[in-house]
Amino acid sequence: MALRSAFTRLLSNSRMSVAVTASRAQGTAVAAQKAKVAFNWRDALNLEGQLTEEEIMIRDSFRDYCQEKLMPRVLMANRHEHFHREIVSEMGELGVLGPTIKGYGCAGTSYVAYGLIAREVERVDSGYRSVMSVQSSLVMHPINAYGTAAQKEKYLPRLARGEIVGCFGLTEPNHGSDPSSMETKAKYNPSSGTFTISGAKTWITNSPVADIAVVWAKCEDGRVRGFILERGMKGFSTPKIEGKFSLRASATGMILMDEVEVPEENLLPNVSGLGGPFGCLNNARYGIAWGALGAAEFCFHAARQYTLDRIQFGVPLARNQLMQKKMADMLTEITIGLQSCLYLGRLVDEKKAAPEMISMLKRNSCGKALDIARQARDMLGGNGISDEYHIIRHVMNLEAVNTYEGTHDIHALILGRAITGLQSFTVEN
Amino acid sequence: MALRSAFTRLLSNSRMSVAVTASRAQGTAVAAQKAKVAFNWRDALNLEGQLTEEEIMIRDSFRDYCQEKLMPRVLMANRHEHFHREIVSEMGELGVLGPTIKGYGCAGTSYVAYGLIAREVERVDSGYRSVMSVQSSLVMHPINAYGTAAQKEKYLPRLARGEIVGCFGLTEPNHGSDPSSMETKAKYNPSSGTFTISGAKTWITNSPVADIAVVWAKCEDGRVRGFILERGMKGFSTPKIEGKFSLRASATGMILMDEVEVPEENLLPNVSGLGGPFGCLNNARYGIAWGALGAAEFCFHAARQYTLDRIQFGVPLARNQLMQKKMADMLTEITIGLQSCLYLGRLVDEKKAAPEMISMLKRNSCGKALDIARQARDMLGGNGISDEYHIIRHVMNLEAVNTYEGTHDIHALILGRAITGLQSFTVEN
Amino acid sequence: MALRSAFTRLLSNSRMSVAVTASRAQGTAVAAQKAKVAFNWRDALNLEGQLTEEEIMIRDSFRDYCQEKLMPRVLMANRHEHFHREIVSEMGELGVLGPTIKGYGCAGTSYVAYGLIAREVERVDSGYRSVMSVQSSLVMHPINAYGTAAQKEKYLPRLARGEIVGCFGLTEPNHGSDPSSMETKAKYNPSSGTFTISGAKTWITNSPVADIAVVWAKCEDGRVRGFILERGMKGFSTPKIEGKFSLRASATGMILMDEVEVPEENLLPNVSGLGGPFGCLNNARYGIAWGALGAAEFCFHAARQYTLDRIQFGVPLARNQLMQKKMADMLTEITIGLQSCLYLGRLVDEKKAAPEMISMLKRNSCGKALDIARQARDMLGGNGISDEYHIIRHVMNLEAVNTYEGTHDIHALILGRAITGLQSFTVEN
Amino acid sequence: MALRSAFTRLLSNSRMSVAVTASRAQGTAVAAQKAKVAFNWRDALNLEGQLTEEEIMIRDSFRDYCQEKLMPRVLMANRHEHFHREIVSEMGELGVLGPTIKGYGCAGTSYVAYGLIAREVERVDSGYRSVMSVQSSLVMHPINAYGTAAQKEKYLPRLARGEIVGCFGLTEPNHGSDPSSMETKAKYNPSSGTFTISGAKTWITNSPVADIAVVWAKCEDGRVRGFILERGMKGFSTPKIEGKFSLRASATGMILMDEVEVPEENLLPNVSGLGGPFGCLNNARYGIAWGALGAAEFCFHAARQYTLDRIQFGVPLARNQLMQKKMADMLTEITIGLQSCLYLGRLVDEKKAAPEMISMLKRNSCGKALDIARQARDMLGGNGISDEYHIIRHVMNLEAVNTYEGTHDIHALILGRAITGLQSFTVEN
Repeated sequence: MALRSAFTRLLSNSRMSVAVTASRAQGTAVAAQKAKVAFNWRDALNLEGQLTEEEIMIRDSFRDYCQEKLMPRVLMANRHEHFHREIVSEMGELGVLGPTIKGYGCAGTSYVAYGLIAREVERVDSGYRSVMSVQSSLVMHPINAYGTAAQKEKYLPRLARGEIVGCFGLTEPNHGSDPSSMETKAKYNPSSGTFTISGAKTWITNSPVADIAVVWAKCEDGRVRGFILERGMKGFSTPKIEGKFSLRASATGMILMDEVEVPEENLLPNVSGLGGPFGCLNNARYGIAWGALGAAEFCFHAARQYTLDRIQFGVPLARNQLMQKKMADMLTEITIGLQSCLYLGRLVDEKKAAPEMISMLKRNSCGKALDIARQARDMLGGNGISDEYHIIRHVMNLEAVNTYEGTHDIHALILGRAITGLQSFTVEN
Repeated sequence: MALRSAFTRLLSNSRMSVAVTASRAQGTAVAAQKAKVAFNWRDALNLEGQLTEEEIMIRDSFRDYCQEKLMPRVLMANRHEHFHREIVSEMGELGVLGPTIKGYGCAGTSYVAYGLIAREVERVDSGYRSVMSVQSSLVMHPINAYGTAAQKEKYLPRLARGEIVGCFGLTEPNHGSDPSSMETKAKYNPSSGTFTISGAKTWITNSPVADIAVVWAKCEDGRVRGFILERGMKGFSTPKIEGKFSLRASATGMILMDEVEVPEENLLPNVSGLGGPFGCLNNARYGIAWGALGAAEFCFHAARQYTLDRIQFGVPLARNQLMQKKMADMLTEITIGLQSCLYLGRLVDEKKAAPEMISMLKRNSCGKALDIARQARDMLGGNGISDEYHIIRHVMNLEAVNTYEGTHDIHALILGRAITGLQSFTVEN
Repeated sequence: MALRSAFTRLLSNSRMSVAVTASRAQGTAVAAQKAKVAFNWRDALNLEGQLTEEEIMIRDSFRDYCQEKLMPRVLMANRHEHFHREIVSEMGELGVLGPTIKGYGCAGTSYVAYGLIAREVERVDSGYRSVMSVQSSLVMHPINAYGTAAQKEKYLPRLARGEIVGCFGLTEPNHGSDPSSMETKAKYNPSSGTFTISGAKTWITNSPVADIAVVWAKCEDGRVRGFILERGMKGFSTPKIEGKFSLRASATGMILMDEVEVPEENLLPNVSGLGGPFGCLNNARYGIAWGALGAAEFCFHAARQYTLDRIQFGVPLARNQLMQKKMADMLTEITIGLQSCLYLGRLVDEKKAAPEMISMLKRNSCGKALDIARQARDMLGGNGISDEYHIIRHVMNLEAVNTYEGTHDIHALILGRAITGLQSFTVEN
Repeated sequence: MALRSAFTRLLSNSRMSVAVTASRAQGTAVAAQKAKVAFNWRDALNLEGQLTEEEIMIRDSFRDYCQEKLMPRVLMANRHEHFHREIVSEMGELGVLGPTIKGYGCAGTSYVAYGLIAREVERVDSGYRSVMSVQSSLVMHPINAYGTAAQKEKYLPRLARGEIVGCFGLTEPNHGSDPSSMETKAKYNPSSGTFTISGAKTWITNSPVADIAVVWAKCEDGRVRGFILERGMKGFSTPKIEGKFSLRASATGMILMDEVEVPEENLLPNVSGLGGPFGCLNNARYGIAWGALGAAEFCFHAARQYTLDRIQFGVPLARNQLMQKKMADMLTEITIGLQSCLYLGRLVDEKKAAPEMISMLKRNSCGKALDIARQARDMLGGNGISDEYHIIRHVMNLEAVNTYEGTHDIHALILGRAITGLQSFTVEN
């Protein structure tokens, strides 16, 4: 084996100059010894140092909004299943809707900034983050990526300002993990230049309050295509789903379409097939990967503070090994999860991110966040079931977050296929 | 709340130029749609793209050595508990001993390169990595960091070349996780200018084959100090520990010191207290954090290939959901673990790494690697207990790796203390 | 070693009669081969065969009530946090309140029957089981075990009929896992023959609807004693706790006592010290150990049916390995948990049950049931967050059940102390 | 709903006699309060009280043998992969081989006694239990259940005495979990009245030392049948498998059959199809379900004692919460596992055990035992990798035990099929 590498060259140089470096090296070593670096449990691997100044400013100003404006509203919103429509307008004013889009009144931030925004809002509530994700990734993104210039000009600025709210119709009552079996149909009417769309979509975030809906339907050629439906179209209705014990601060409903007539110009022309909605989901999942860790961070911080404040058997609960081990696990998973999200964001910005990377981190963040929230709830004992301590709300929210846009198991099979080249979703080979 | 941030400025600019950007933006979006990035399960988050050219070259040349020269020897070495002394010389020749040290015949690489080296060697065997870690982090590092110029000149070049082998004596039979209760004593003899050292150290990697030992002893002032002992000194012996079912390809023993007389010039003068050995352990732990993931990668890759090759019920084992889920979990943990190790390495290079960061990643890598190895072994079914498939060897090795230099639980308490400010190691407050 | 046991005697006899038995044995073996026993996934280890006829009849009739009368009410009760007071009366009529008590209008069943009752009601809702547990184990039990004949005659028949509802006041706002630090005080007034009780109790099931409360307070001699308080006493109030996301179908509140004057004859005279409330908790925990598994069974059965009914990728979800593994785990834990509860019940009946046995099974049942409910919810995907599928309700309920009457961790330490003889609750030795 | 049950009758009786029972009931309650039952961590749910006197005597005498005669030999046997053939003879003398068989020099014990025997021997080593299981369940059982009177008389008494050793040939190199694809062929030669058998079996416990082998082969009619092969037959060889890091105290090898001519009278006539070997495996799995928990108990007890003896930071390791929690988990799983094995044994004795029950408990015991052994090893820190503490040996052994006779995952799918009626082993529907 011939080792003619930079390594051996480095080494040869070094070995020739042993005498020279000796004294200098010593000095360095001793100095290194002296400066012990402080550990910051709120940022255990120096995420801060890896952000741009702009990203930090965006994050900080949006964090202020979330803590000062959203946090005080969420308790009652969640308790009473009330969605505050004005939040979308506020977010629009702040510029966090469709933030990565260039132009059309959007901020054109990096994807890392988008991730930081998702994390801050989900630190408060996954329902609020869902509202934002839907607007940004599932409504604005497809219009921007697959729409006509006219569609963009018509919808994007109003969506960006939060003047109108959008929703995204893909999942059907009988087809959760398997959208290829979609039953919603779009039939083209050459005479009127319209499509007639019929079908039902369910578990649609924002649908009860939405002004427009990006809906996916199967056309007569068997291809799935996207359409922009508007409230007020005949045959279009959005009944609210009652009795939801997750994401209660956001509105969820169905989209019922009974022969809705949609003008041809509302078709998204630049995509066909499931690649269209999957591209959107991918975009949304990226935000979820960040957001879920924001929820996890809240739970970790709240449980830490609770156990520091609460005295049992004469010492703070936080002094117990069983508590400390839970917190060590939380800290670790949050830290390594965020570190990976950060680099994934950089890859998205450079257009080097594969969808499976996003699957991997969506799955990891959600699964870990759910575990962390559950552990945190447990640390609060009896008080942990009261919504005033907020953690139980996150526990319930993260059940949905871990499930939507690809369940934990479905993403395992997506990754499994990428690893082995063999699909195991279906019984066919 | 006044939001006068880069964010809002970004936004304002954007909103003024809606019309202009419209057409350009569309082009980009469509192009972005086209170029789907391929996913590489061997490097799921593009670690490669984050390394310097030099780091890649070092890694590649050393990987060749490990796969071509170590892999063929390890099966029998492990089966028969045989340590090949010549490996240290070979490593010396390759320049991987004390690689981050500047001068003294050392390569002076980055800490990331050190991590990559540890990962490659542990991909073969944790025992070999242990040999290397001890030499580099626990023997060369303290001599470099705490030693005199004369000590450095005397020992470092020979250690770097693998001409002599060193070991590190801290752990005592009755004191594993709690070195502050150390019983080994060093008594100064002013007349002869020597220290008389008595005590016993155990679970000492390399001790049976070591030429020198960095030994920590309590001096009469109650402070712990480090000494360089040499084989041949009267009263110094290193019995091998038999019946070890972990790290069998490396030699482990005790260091027995029965009134060993050690010249004053063998004292490491530039450190006193437990900070000395803890600094060394910290250095070693950093390498372990990388190394353990190398072992995990081997197990993942081997289990993947095995399940692809083995047909049961008419399809490859790898086509089963239960197998794919295990592999998805492995891939995720390895990927996010490595991503964090990488950034930790950069922080170490910049002297911005806190010891708790290293605790966190040592603990994470080892715990996760052990889980992965166990899952991989399970995937091999009956064949998994045969050493010819190598995984059972990693399972056994990682038991030690997860334990030494701070057990999983001890690092949890270290982190718990950093998080809460409250120690829970002892019953005192 | 002299083996003079039944074993060797058995063996000698056998060896003398080899020839005789040969033909007979063969017949048996072949017969045994024929009769394959059917496996019943609803009762995987034949619990049914271990119950008395009476126990089965009690269980069946109560199951009918629960399924026909409680199940239809629970959805809205939980959604709107509404407690149906009449349920206590219905239960009283059925005889399931204080069922193990002999006399006073109680049924005098075995403890196994009590367990079966708890399991049936918690199959519907842990809140309803809590109501029943409190009435039976925490109110009727202490009156029966520690009360005077007059107290028993006054309260037990009315409690048994559900005419009045009781609650149990032990936990205080600052003292969850550590009741020995109780702050509620009882001061004796010799002149009036009354006690003046002041303090606050929290997380008290039934308190807002209770007619009486068994309250524990520290007397002037430092001993904890129990008192029966009645609604209407001056200074006694029971504010409801709002925003509870667990056990919403039962009422939970505080007990505030502002110098409540309690007649001497309301003191429970036959116990002092924490043994009193602990005896009650022990009794209740026994019921919880059974009940939690009932909730787990509901979740298992519901998830099984859902995945059989729901088709994805052309086959029922239940045909997926990832689903089947979850169900195999559920079945196993439910089965072995119930088997142990059954024998524990027999031991309680024979007065051979140690409190630690109950700790062990309370902890096991609750922890496992919570895991099962979470897995089941996950199996339902998006639908799993809707209360119409009931599982999310059990997930939320079991958070409280796993916490109250000793958290999972506290019972671990109780068991740890029993195993090692060393307490690790506090920092003292 | 008409409740005309024993329950309501019980209740009515009770309510009529309130007055009478009042005073008596009180006495009982107070007495009950007094007698606190002691908790025995070695038998946390009073298994002892559920055994017959005979079962206890068998267990105790065999435990003495295991502890006094096997324990001292196992360290070196495992370290050097040496199987002590004389152990089979000793076991034969004690009567523990084929213990449940009636006649033929067998003890004719209950299946519970068989379970207790397996538990005692596996408390020492799973390899020794494997030897015993193979002889009893996989060699003697099929001869007894499927053999002719002549076969029984010829082989059973000698096998029972341990004069000859048997092995069981089912698993083939390419067919682990899927024996239906068996490649070993048996061809009948009408002229000589013999079968010619060719094929290879692997991972065969006892094969290198076996005098006879019960081998399963596919006949020309496509049916699998069993044959008794004897050492010395031409073309029969049993090479040892080297490099095994599990069950090293027992011998494992292949069975190579190169046109072995087997007389017709060596065919087991009373079974055909996979029901034959599966019946044997079922029998063996029952013993494993008990045995694995014996290994777990050893690990639990050893880790408990170690942590009580070892002082760190001034207190026994056992005083740490993290240690106590591990032990609480161990105790719980061992206890509930054994309780279920006990009742399963009673069902087997009554011929009421379904194979899926055995799958369930084999899977549960093995999976839990492996977890317990790993946790116990961890509790021993560095010392835990030394064979002198025995736990690492159990860790390695249980890897095989969890895998053989149906892996953890395969049994999950067996149970899944029993729960859902849908098989998910293969890709066919």
